[in-house]
Amino acid sequence: MVSFESDYIAGAHPEVLRRLAETNLEALPGYGTDPYCELAREKICRAVGLLDADVEFLVGGTQTNALVISSMLRDYEGVAAARTGHISTHEAGAVEYSGHKVLELAAEEGKLKPKTLRRFLEEFYADGNHEHMVFPGMVYISHPTEYGTLYTKKELEELSAICRAYEIPLFLDGARLGYGLMSYETDVTLADIAHLTDVFSIGGTKVGALCGEAVVFTRKNKPAHFMTSVKKRGALLAKGRLLGIQFDALFTDDLYFRISRQAIDMAERMKAIFIGHGIPFYIDSPTNQQFVILENERLKQLKEKAAFSFWERADESHTVVRFATSWSTTTEDLRALEEALRE
Amino acid sequence: MVSFESDYIAGAHPEVLRRLAETNLEALPGYGTDPYCELAREKICRAVGLLDADVEFLVGGTQTNALVISSMLRDYEGVAAARTGHISTHEAGAVEYSGHKVLELAAEEGKLKPKTLRRFLEEFYADGNHEHMVFPGMVYISHPTEYGTLYTKKELEELSAICRAYEIPLFLDGARLGYGLMSYETDVTLADIAHLTDVFSIGGTKVGALCGEAVVFTRKNKPAHFMTSVKKRGALLAKGRLLGIQFDALFTDDLYFRISRQAIDMAERMKAIFIGHGIPFYIDSPTNQQFVILENERLKQLKEKAAFSFWERADESHTVVRFATSWSTTTEDLRALEEALRE
Amino acid sequence: MVSFESDYIAGAHPEVLRRLAETNLEALPGYGTDPYCELAREKICRAVGLLDADVEFLVGGTQTNALVISSMLRDYEGVAAARTGHISTHEAGAVEYSGHKVLELAAEEGKLKPKTLRRFLEEFYADGNHEHMVFPGMVYISHPTEYGTLYTKKELEELSAICRAYEIPLFLDGARLGYGLMSYETDVTLADIAHLTDVFSIGGTKVGALCGEAVVFTRKNKPAHFMTSVKKRGALLAKGRLLGIQFDALFTDDLYFRISRQAIDMAERMKAIFIGHGIPFYIDSPTNQQFVILENERLKQLKEKAAFSFWERADESHTVVRFATSWSTTTEDLRALEEALRE
Amino acid sequence: MVSFESDYIAGAHPEVLRRLAETNLEALPGYGTDPYCELAREKICRAVGLLDADVEFLVGGTQTNALVISSMLRDYEGVAAARTGHISTHEAGAVEYSGHKVLELAAEEGKLKPKTLRRFLEEFYADGNHEHMVFPGMVYISHPTEYGTLYTKKELEELSAICRAYEIPLFLDGARLGYGLMSYETDVTLADIAHLTDVFSIGGTKVGALCGEAVVFTRKNKPAHFMTSVKKRGALLAKGRLLGIQFDALFTDDLYFRISRQAIDMAERMKAIFIGHGIPFYIDSPTNQQFVILENERLKQLKEKAAFSFWERADESHTVVRFATSWSTTTEDLRALEEALRE
Repeated sequence: MVSFESDYIAGAHPEVLRRLAETNLEALPGYGTDPYCELAREKICRAVGLLDADVEFLVGGTQTNALVISSMLRDYEGVAAARTGHISTHEAGAVEYSGHKVLELAAEEGKLKPKTLRRFLEEFYADGNHEHMVFPGMVYISHPTEYGTLYTKKELEELSAICRAYEIPLFLDGARLGYGLMSYETDVTLADIAHLTDVFSIGGTKVGALCGEAVVFTRKNKPAHFMTSVKKRGALLAKGRLLGIQFDALFTDDLYFRISRQAIDMAERMKAIFIGHGIPFYIDSPTNQQFVILENERLKQLKEKAAFSFWERADESHTVVRFATSWSTTTEDLRALEEALRE
Repeated sequence: MVSFESDYIAGAHPEVLRRLAETNLEALPGYGTDPYCELAREKICRAVGLLDADVEFLVGGTQTNALVISSMLRDYEGVAAARTGHISTHEAGAVEYSGHKVLELAAEEGKLKPKTLRRFLEEFYADGNHEHMVFPGMVYISHPTEYGTLYTKKELEELSAICRAYEIPLFLDGARLGYGLMSYETDVTLADIAHLTDVFSIGGTKVGALCGEAVVFTRKNKPAHFMTSVKKRGALLAKGRLLGIQFDALFTDDLYFRISRQAIDMAERMKAIFIGHGIPFYIDSPTNQQFVILENERLKQLKEKAAFSFWERADESHTVVRFATSWSTTTEDLRALEEALRE
Repeated sequence: MVSFESDYIAGAHPEVLRRLAETNLEALPGYGTDPYCELAREKICRAVGLLDADVEFLVGGTQTNALVISSMLRDYEGVAAARTGHISTHEAGAVEYSGHKVLELAAEEGKLKPKTLRRFLEEFYADGNHEHMVFPGMVYISHPTEYGTLYTKKELEELSAICRAYEIPLFLDGARLGYGLMSYETDVTLADIAHLTDVFSIGGTKVGALCGEAVVFTRKNKPAHFMTSVKKRGALLAKGRLLGIQFDALFTDDLYFRISRQAIDMAERMKAIFIGHGIPFYIDSPTNQQFVILENERLKQLKEKAAFSFWERADESHTVVRFATSWSTTTEDLRALEEALRE
Repeated sequence: MVSFESDYIAGAHPEVLRRLAETNLEALPGYGTDPYCELAREKICRAVGLLDADVEFLVGGTQTNALVISSMLRDYEGVAAARTGHISTHEAGAVEYSGHKVLELAAEEGKLKPKTLRRFLEEFYADGNHEHMVFPGMVYISHPTEYGTLYTKKELEELSAICRAYEIPLFLDGARLGYGLMSYETDVTLADIAHLTDVFSIGGTKVGALCGEAVVFTRKNKPAHFMTSVKKRGALLAKGRLLGIQFDALFTDDLYFRISRQAIDMAERMKAIFIGHGIPFYIDSPTNQQFVILENERLKQLKEKAAFSFWERADESHTVVRFATSWSTTTEDLRALEEALRE
């Protein structure tokens, strides 16, 4: 059965695995101090166009979000995010576990709009009781969002300007960053992100790695003794090489971008297939996650041929489901989908 | 200047202070083990109609909420509350400090409606991804709410039934409980609350005490070694007598209810004054907090004669403000208000 | 039965209570913003000899310790303390509840000796693995200690010098500070403490108040938005006046010092009584807590006439017990003790 | 340069890597729900001799310790451990980050002796103030310990009996478990551990895996919704297959035990080399970590030929250092060491 269940259904990109095998028996120091981590850091700095950025590697996405947020917030602060943001919904309360509140704001198609953020901040500081409230100490956005949508460059510029006016760091969760950057419909580059945010992540788990997220601190703002904070949260990998070697491979010869583009190409062809079968979209996503509305009977039949994921009930007789492509999606997978839909 | 700024502008009811003075030099054991705490516990049990309830005394309202919630939730759980609930807004993230999320639900006039709660719980358990989400492990309501409104007995019964069906405790924050019970427009008794909730608080700070909240565990469900959990949060008072003596006084000869009623009487007369002056209400509150909409120029003038609190901007030229009565509000205070409005 | 069970067996000093009664019906703003808090702050500043110190009022001792420590430590830091320190033993893990470790060091007669601290810090930074360890980010001492002992001025100077060399704040827990300052055998003044520490507390609970501790930040180092951090921990008192009025009274006409001296006088007379009856001391305490070794049979008999507290087993047939005097101890109390011992 | 710096200097055992490569492109569900995790669970159950054990996979050792401890402790509890235990020293306060205290007890050669534990528990419950203290809610031991030493079966039986008498779970940290089980000088089997502990871990990171620890709950005592607790701590791996496939490989054809034995064989030969060169041992370790005392000049010379790790200063002119073997240590490595020592 063909699977579009998620963008983490396969192992690692073969080139990544090859590098792990090649270096396997080298004796290396632990905890991210090995030369591959160093190489990967340098390559990422070059790719993002900030030679003095601080780059750190972590294992997973929720871990990355919780660590970045909790190590950068001050005691009396929380993090503002769209109500549909990953940290607000599907991280089991990891930010709250660190003792900080997620200040949930209205979302539009998964995005936190600049006007929403601005109004929230204005009202917060206008409120005479705000010393009794959680101070907004960071803004979290995901790009692509949980609904596959993307911020425009203008939106990012506005969010960034607001954050800088209020002296609040802007954190961009790039768990699926490659798919955002390689979208046919984006005007946002990696350099834009490095320029406009204070910290962002580059997801490996969903883009060719077995595991791993790179965190980029863009403004000499890495928290002091960050390694100890990582250790304190049980997030420090003894064999840091596992992350360094993978990111080194992903940022060699543009592998990260090439495989992301491949997933986008597949997503666009998948969109065409859905259109061809008259299947409506729940949201207009320019990235690798496609949300369509299936009539329940059709859903039931399709389920026997293809794996995809339930998103939410649309109405009595329809359901929103998600189909995800990834670097591992093939032309054969799409052909199988087409066939399954034809039946 | 006359003050309606809050219901905690004065010290203690004179009778409460008298008892503190009378017992002042008695040598008593600490940490809530003295005979006055015991007496107060017994009187509260009788007042709520549950002779085997567990009653504990704490110092303040936010402390009480955070302690009850964090000591009753399990690791993977959060607490569901109205988005306007005190724990959601004005407790500086005290629940999150304990590592737990407040699951904020839509509010109607400050209340969490049974249908809102039911839909939320149904959708949570229908969601195939709910193992990645914070489990609802408690429901928090305030009565009166932050907007002075009250649940009806029917609403409490429905909330209670939903909670019991899902095996989730229902916690009622009674920081202003006296003013709710003594409202002219309530069908809810203290015995109803004891019967329908799993745990609730009886506020002293806003109803005649210098400080102090009583927590009533209604179903033999006080967490094991609760005293140690209190200590761990820095909330254990060495001179527990300060709380015991005050609650003993408040629950002797119905003092708590008599002074609450007095505040309600004053609030009703205050409402009549506002109506008489054509000042519109922001919300229809049957308790001691009254929210009115003032034209900004009038607000400015009134401010010189009376203290009240800013609530929120209504529109360009109007503001919502709160006037609170309490056990200490006098007829003279109302006369002063009337005069100030007349000018 | 006469009681020496603790220094918090009575209510408030009558003068403190009188001031609470006098001001009881004044309408005052909440949360520590009233004029009595302001007055108390000024008087404390003058008493400690630092006119620009920041003074904040909290309710209890464990709360104070946890709040000061957790709001001043950085993420990767813990607090160093004597293994017998109150935060190490009898605060139910309140510091750990805030996510920080207590780094327990060897104690000598309840004190953290300068040489112990110096060696610990030297070894910490010499350890190549210290990035995997909790960084010492504060030093906690209690004065008097849990064993009634006192630091000498020289010891405080050395501790202070070490802390400043390592840029670590020195926090002095003064839950019983008055009894330390008024000891017959101390060369440490309040001004010394203000000068040598970075933050310290002045205990009210055990020295004449119903409740309350004053925290003095000595070097313009009060954490930003401290009030919000206090609220977040459920420690913000709505009627802040309760603390302000009490500390105002305690720091008017040297009341705090006079009643502390009275307790010390009583303790010295109590020591003479024990010596007169040939009862050995467990430790040589120059303050209000006296630890003596009682033969178990005598202990049993004495218990029927006087209250005191169990400290620890000395050997098969002897027990260490504590007798505490306080501002409320009277000559009659001592006479009763003498009589009880004579029998 | 030959390296004995740690037991995690190399990548994965080639057989483990081979299995990752073989299964790499299979489309599998995430979060530990794939068939390889299931297979690995079954094989581990058989290996430990408890067919109904609950087995969960986590990424790293500190993460595993913090997760097991914090999800099993109750609010008022802490974990008792040897003062030299990994959670007490080198985990950057990860247990404290979860809000719980490590109750540090005296260690003998890295071990928590049954008599030490028994005395501690007796004294805790004898103390009339223990409601103000952190309750011992779990006992943590590491096997092998941080000093390479091993508990005897009799010691484990005694610790287990004490824990059961006090109804406290016994948790064995097996980060290096293979090296303990395969020691020439142990009478403890994997079945003994499964029988005597309540929960234990089987380390993969240091025994042939790229990363990964298996946690075995031996008594139907896995915390409810453990997966959500894992997610909440940022420890849930999207590609759970990475752990499942590795542990499946390690527990196929006794690979885990064979490679552990190989490391022990190498350690024994290394010991013989040290003895042959008259180098004294700091501690008598029967496992893969060997601690020797080097004269500082010799240390300096040796450092140019071999990597090993600093442990602690012995005296002015000597230093304790650690040499670790692992599954990846070869006969050539030992030959290189011998040569380096000869020079």
